[in-house]
Amino acid sequence: MKISDADRAEILVRALPYIQQYYNKTFVVKYGGNAMVSDELRDAVITDIVLLSLVGINVVLVHGGGPEITEMLEKIGKETRFVDGLRYTDRETMDVVQMVLAGKVNKSLVQLIGDRGGRALGLCGLDGNMIKAQKKKGKADLGFVGEIVDIDVTTLNDAMEKGYIPVVSTIAGGDDSNVYNINADLAASRIASSLHAEKLLLMTDVRGLLRDKDDEDTLISSVNVSEVPALKKQGIISGGMIPKIDCCVEAVRRGVKRTHIIDGRLPHSIIIEVFSREGIGTMFL
Amino acid sequence: MKISDADRAEILVRALPYIQQYYNKTFVVKYGGNAMVSDELRDAVITDIVLLSLVGINVVLVHGGGPEITEMLEKIGKETRFVDGLRYTDRETMDVVQMVLAGKVNKSLVQLIGDRGGRALGLCGLDGNMIKAQKKKGKADLGFVGEIVDIDVTTLNDAMEKGYIPVVSTIAGGDDSNVYNINADLAASRIASSLHAEKLLLMTDVRGLLRDKDDEDTLISSVNVSEVPALKKQGIISGGMIPKIDCCVEAVRRGVKRTHIIDGRLPHSIIIEVFSREGIGTMFL
Amino acid sequence: MKISDADRAEILVRALPYIQQYYNKTFVVKYGGNAMVSDELRDAVITDIVLLSLVGINVVLVHGGGPEITEMLEKIGKETRFVDGLRYTDRETMDVVQMVLAGKVNKSLVQLIGDRGGRALGLCGLDGNMIKAQKKKGKADLGFVGEIVDIDVTTLNDAMEKGYIPVVSTIAGGDDSNVYNINADLAASRIASSLHAEKLLLMTDVRGLLRDKDDEDTLISSVNVSEVPALKKQGIISGGMIPKIDCCVEAVRRGVKRTHIIDGRLPHSIIIEVFSREGIGTMFL
Amino acid sequence: MKISDADRAEILVRALPYIQQYYNKTFVVKYGGNAMVSDELRDAVITDIVLLSLVGINVVLVHGGGPEITEMLEKIGKETRFVDGLRYTDRETMDVVQMVLAGKVNKSLVQLIGDRGGRALGLCGLDGNMIKAQKKKGKADLGFVGEIVDIDVTTLNDAMEKGYIPVVSTIAGGDDSNVYNINADLAASRIASSLHAEKLLLMTDVRGLLRDKDDEDTLISSVNVSEVPALKKQGIISGGMIPKIDCCVEAVRRGVKRTHIIDGRLPHSIIIEVFSREGIGTMFL
Amino acid sequence: MKISDADRAEILVRALPYIQQYYNKTFVVKYGGNAMVSDELRDAVITDIVLLSLVGINVVLVHGGGPEITEMLEKIGKETRFVDGLRYTDRETMDVVQMVLAGKVNKSLVQLIGDRGGRALGLCGLDGNMIKAQKKKGKADLGFVGEIVDIDVTTLNDAMEKGYIPVVSTIAGGDDSNVYNINADLAASRIASSLHAEKLLLMTDVRGLLRDKDDEDTLISSVNVSEVPALKKQGIISGGMIPKIDCCVEAVRRGVKRTHIIDGRLPHSIIIEVFSREGIGTMFL
Amino acid sequence: MKISDADRAEILVRALPYIQQYYNKTFVVKYGGNAMVSDELRDAVITDIVLLSLVGINVVLVHGGGPEITEMLEKIGKETRFVDGLRYTDRETMDVVQMVLAGKVNKSLVQLIGDRGGRALGLCGLDGNMIKAQKKKGKADLGFVGEIVDIDVTTLNDAMEKGYIPVVSTIAGGDDSNVYNINADLAASRIASSLHAEKLLLMTDVRGLLRDKDDEDTLISSVNVSEVPALKKQGIISGGMIPKIDCCVEAVRRGVKRTHIIDGRLPHSIIIEVFSREGIGTMFL
Repeated sequence: MKISDADRAEILVRALPYIQQYYNKTFVVKYGGNAMVSDELRDAVITDIVLLSLVGINVVLVHGGGPEITEMLEKIGKETRFVDGLRYTDRETMDVVQMVLAGKVNKSLVQLIGDRGGRALGLCGLDGNMIKAQKKKGKADLGFVGEIVDIDVTTLNDAMEKGYIPVVSTIAGGDDSNVYNINADLAASRIASSLHAEKLLLMTDVRGLLRDKDDEDTLISSVNVSEVPALKKQGIISGGMIPKIDCCVEAVRRGVKRTHIIDGRLPHSIIIEVFSREGIGTMFL
Repeated sequence: MKISDADRAEILVRALPYIQQYYNKTFVVKYGGNAMVSDELRDAVITDIVLLSLVGINVVLVHGGGPEITEMLEKIGKETRFVDGLRYTDRETMDVVQMVLAGKVNKSLVQLIGDRGGRALGLCGLDGNMIKAQKKKGKADLGFVGEIVDIDVTTLNDAMEKGYIPVVSTIAGGDDSNVYNINADLAASRIASSLHAEKLLLMTDVRGLLRDKDDEDTLISSVNVSEVPALKKQGIISGGMIPKIDCCVEAVRRGVKRTHIIDGRLPHSIIIEVFSREGIGTMFL
Repeated sequence: MKISDADRAEILVRALPYIQQYYNKTFVVKYGGNAMVSDELRDAVITDIVLLSLVGINVVLVHGGGPEITEMLEKIGKETRFVDGLRYTDRETMDVVQMVLAGKVNKSLVQLIGDRGGRALGLCGLDGNMIKAQKKKGKADLGFVGEIVDIDVTTLNDAMEKGYIPVVSTIAGGDDSNVYNINADLAASRIASSLHAEKLLLMTDVRGLLRDKDDEDTLISSVNVSEVPALKKQGIISGGMIPKIDCCVEAVRRGVKRTHIIDGRLPHSIIIEVFSREGIGTMFL
Repeated sequence: MKISDADRAEILVRALPYIQQYYNKTFVVKYGGNAMVSDELRDAVITDIVLLSLVGINVVLVHGGGPEITEMLEKIGKETRFVDGLRYTDRETMDVVQMVLAGKVNKSLVQLIGDRGGRALGLCGLDGNMIKAQKKKGKADLGFVGEIVDIDVTTLNDAMEKGYIPVVSTIAGGDDSNVYNINADLAASRIASSLHAEKLLLMTDVRGLLRDKDDEDTLISSVNVSEVPALKKQGIISGGMIPKIDCCVEAVRRGVKRTHIIDGRLPHSIIIEVFSREGIGTMFL
Repeated sequence: MKISDADRAEILVRALPYIQQYYNKTFVVKYGGNAMVSDELRDAVITDIVLLSLVGINVVLVHGGGPEITEMLEKIGKETRFVDGLRYTDRETMDVVQMVLAGKVNKSLVQLIGDRGGRALGLCGLDGNMIKAQKKKGKADLGFVGEIVDIDVTTLNDAMEKGYIPVVSTIAGGDDSNVYNINADLAASRIASSLHAEKLLLMTDVRGLLRDKDDEDTLISSVNVSEVPALKKQGIISGGMIPKIDCCVEAVRRGVKRTHIIDGRLPHSIIIEVFSREGIGTMFL
Repeated sequence: MKISDADRAEILVRALPYIQQYYNKTFVVKYGGNAMVSDELRDAVITDIVLLSLVGINVVLVHGGGPEITEMLEKIGKETRFVDGLRYTDRETMDVVQMVLAGKVNKSLVQLIGDRGGRALGLCGLDGNMIKAQKKKGKADLGFVGEIVDIDVTTLNDAMEKGYIPVVSTIAGGDDSNVYNINADLAASRIASSLHAEKLLLMTDVRGLLRDKDDEDTLISSVNVSEVPALKKQGIISGGMIPKIDCCVEAVRRGVKRTHIIDGRLPHSIIIEVFSREGIGTMFL
């Protein structure tokens, strides 16, 4: 990169209004997908998180499990049972999920942030009784798959007040003393609204919402949540995008200012989204 | 139990001087051994911890791994390699250690405390950059077995100030970005001295230090750390007790008021130790 | 008492839920009757108060005068004048009341609490302009017998915030610059409601409210304040119990969660009431 | 008084430098003698205290007993026993002293300050374990006459921080659980030095230290504590002035900036002393 | 002045109720007219301000420009242009106004307060974005004469909280990045109401509102703002008094307790007004 | 500028270590020379200041007068008198200096910062009694040219604690109640050391210290203050650079970590200096 001092200064200066706008605001970042697999992408995400934190933004990093859960299940020779085509989480599987999420993925992220000069705290829904869950209701019994009953963000606020970046694994305890696995996108959405966050950023493996899913040039930059039903009817929101966008809509409805679907495959997509006028993904407001 | 109201009152009243004495003091409890295996004993430990916390004592719970690490290693078919008769911790093993300790044992303790009405925070040496480690020096290369380079108790103090019971897994990061497994007794001893703790309580599977190791009636209630070398020479301190007692001595030398070796096989041994004149184990001062 | 360590631990553990429930709550204890006369009972009350304070309960101790006022009046050869069968409090008598209450009884309680390791502050209605009184209205002129016009609990809150146990003599100043004697039960009731106390405990010389006043086995453990009029009509609440129970009812009506009439003749009746499921007196709610 | 508006303004303006100088400083006033007997003088003292407090000076009012103790002892027909010419304080006398000081004189001062718009707290050496005493050592056994063992000014600082004027009776508890009577001048001196007070003002019934004790025009305005031994040798400091001036010297030696002997027989002598250049009594520094 | 100590004490004592009444209240003083010209009067004003501040009153000093602006305009040979008989403020004039007000008059007042032992902060409407202005609307274009759009008293509160006396020049910025000159009486009125001030004191060159403007003995001491329209109709409020009294009325309407028109030609008129029962000017309430 | 999103992200990311390093540190910027004259340069300086402030750096902006003082002196037809070749500052000149600096330049900078979203406070040495000066000693009498006697940075710390950017004009009061003009470079140096600043940045109209003053390629990037005497002897430090570099040396000697001479003629030279490894001027350490 051969960029002059003047250009570098200009770029920092252009970040100024965004720094002002987001000072002391809270961002919830849902981290998952390819950005968890590639070392280079993961380093870029961590750097972005630390940078946001340094310019005065309170960041909560909510993460999923990535392929490490599968890998561990394979190692112990666990065969996945399916119920009506859905994966059943028995107790042994749940134990692996908990261990990999809260013990491996979470603490590794904490370490990476620490190595970059940030101060992180690796938490899950059990810490400080943050998330209360119950067995997910539905036709099929999916075992220890849970749904959120209640969120108490005191622990997150305590951590952020003391200057930590909370890193959150989305497992949670029930009144029955079981531990449940919670969908990370949903948990991030609920945490964001409980914290009255300024932004929820969902990292995905797509460019954003595309009018034509095969043409990245048809990216829709901004969607008002009231347009979502129509976009679903037209088939523009479909497949795996439906639950992700539902999380975005839900968060906006519960008071999060803006939610973004961003492409985790691009390095520093968080910073580009936050510190530029156009952003690079799809914003819901 | 048929105890009259008057007797019950009397017992509470007799706890009074201990509550006064320990108000706002810090206790570090090293939890391990049989007390981690039996459900009944574990429940008693958790209850004791919550009770100490409620009467104004700041408690830090440091835990080992118990048989769950071995069980998991077996599950993945990992064979242990020995070097000079000592277990070698390769990266795969270290991953399992981290997962089981920080993801399973730690968060389960957090959940149990939460279910009893306490508020716990499940941390490890990586959180808030609490413990810095390096590869353990010595004749044999033991892999990712670490020794403590530095302890920063800011995160523990932040947590206690906000009213949480920190639960600590003793894994720690190095400047080489590796994660190391730290001996839990040693870590508890160092944490206690860094916190200027009033007490360090090491839970063991023995009655305490016995003059005749086959006769529990020969329990030595109190040992001045200056007597330890003589006791070693006499063979009274021997075998597996040596490293445990070294931890006690080290803690006292670095400023912990009193350290105790207590019998984790007795339910509520913590409470009995703390709230009675004689105590039930061996105290080092 | 030959109680095993295990039983002792069990009893402490059983107190746990009560300690949790009452943490940082406020209890107002009206201290009077036989519990003020017997040295043993008085010591037990003081111990109970200090214990409550240590487990995080804010205690306000309101006391009456006991026989010491009468004794002092006799010493100075004061003859009591009666008006319509009621004792008339002239200025000389009022001076004695003030001296004995605020100078002797109050400060002796402060000293006892101090000797037990607590930190007490001996206050009366004049301190910090806490209670404003006026001459009691009624048919008979009873001299310097007063009724409460206004209560300002700022001083009590200041004292409790700084960790003191306020001990309160129920004398109060009027706008006419006179000092008035206030009924201690009434004052305790009003103080409790002004502090939004969790509990008001009135120590009496009876077992509680008895269905048959000659049979302690007919104790009524719990009374809803709405039942009180019927209990009066039935004669179950009668005589000296009427004003005491009216204080309880009034306190509950003004927002105190629960009020208790307990037997001051039993040592540690406060602790037994607070830390057991059944309690030992009569609770109004 | 026919004083013009301009003159009134001028007088207020002239107080300016003193208000600046003493802002947030602590003054200990020992109140006693004639100023306690005359209603007019007492009102003036109270007004002065409230005024000092309003212009930002922290005032601690330490009082003696005046003739009210004697009066009460007479009322109960107590005859004073003398030991080597010194009054013996038996337990009954001590009880009267405690009652009159802490119950009557103290709380009446609290009430007067309250009526003038101030907020006072009536304390004694027992409150918050402020003063620890022991039986006074010496040739003669004087009963419950005590000497100060230790002073803990936490309670006074807590009270002043919350904006109260502490009013202090100089009785104190011993480790033997007895109550002792402490000389008020000595207590005031020790309280002043423990509080690092700016000023100690001792109210007396004389004009100050006079070179010729029969001629008020020979008032010595200012004495350096190093001159005191010479003044004693010359007989200028003699009789009842000796212990008072010893209190002043002791206070200065222990760090009180300036101590003053002022004439309590003059109304508003405190204000005149504090807010004028010359003062009206004798200053020790 | 030959006033006895006793009289001096008496005068200080009489100030007591006013000090109590105004403790921690906020006074806004508009300083202008002759009181700015005479050195003696200015010194008296500064002394009064410092005295108010010392007895616990928060004072904000708002000042006008006096003859120094005219003097400076003359020095640079600026001729004043008139529009419909009103002075037009062109940019060069506005620059002079800004320099003289914020650079000379303001900082000189800050220095005088500093020399008297006070701590002042010289601010204008630009500091901390305190006053937002816009070009004054009206028939004639008067150039950079502004009217207040918005007041943010955060900066004043920050300054007073830290113990400073804010001195305010009434120039303010617009969204067009111009600086506007604001009428100081109006600004003081708006600042007083935004601060919920206890008092607004407008210093003038008249005795107050006179029933007969040629006879100072006809001073009206107190006016209810509801009487103002009638007084205008009667011609009692007329000429230059109209805008001043409108400022008083406006302030009272917006919540200032009392506003006063006082005579700046009398030395210490502020102190006389504040610390005496009758006051010396005209009070609006 | 055609810079890709990725490059923009990269540049922000590269700023990360500097933001971490300087978080909550204090920078003193001396603003003067060409950077005050050009609108473009001034805007860039203001933007840089606001950006530093947003990323958590406490900035104090000390400014000189630029050509506006000369312009104003010309306007009033003031002729400059010279004494031994040095400009004599008579009272009329000093008045102009004060007005232009504290009234015009200072408040305009405050306004510009406010318009950019910052919150500034326009102060001078008189505010809060910040700088105490005296007539400068020396052979020639230069009138109201002053030298610093004492600096009290309480007001600057109060302002920064409340989140303001202090903008400081370097005029100061003396004990003789005169106002003195202080050299702005010297004042900035002393303010920086009194604040224990991390950095002092002196803006100049040169590239930095050049080994050959006619060749900008000979810039010396870093100088240890111990090398300065040699550099002077060699003539590399000469002429107008001498006093500037003396200010840098003095600041480093009194504890400022690093001082920088930077080229105010380059836009955003502050940001380039702070957020890049090489910097662009000459650093003294």
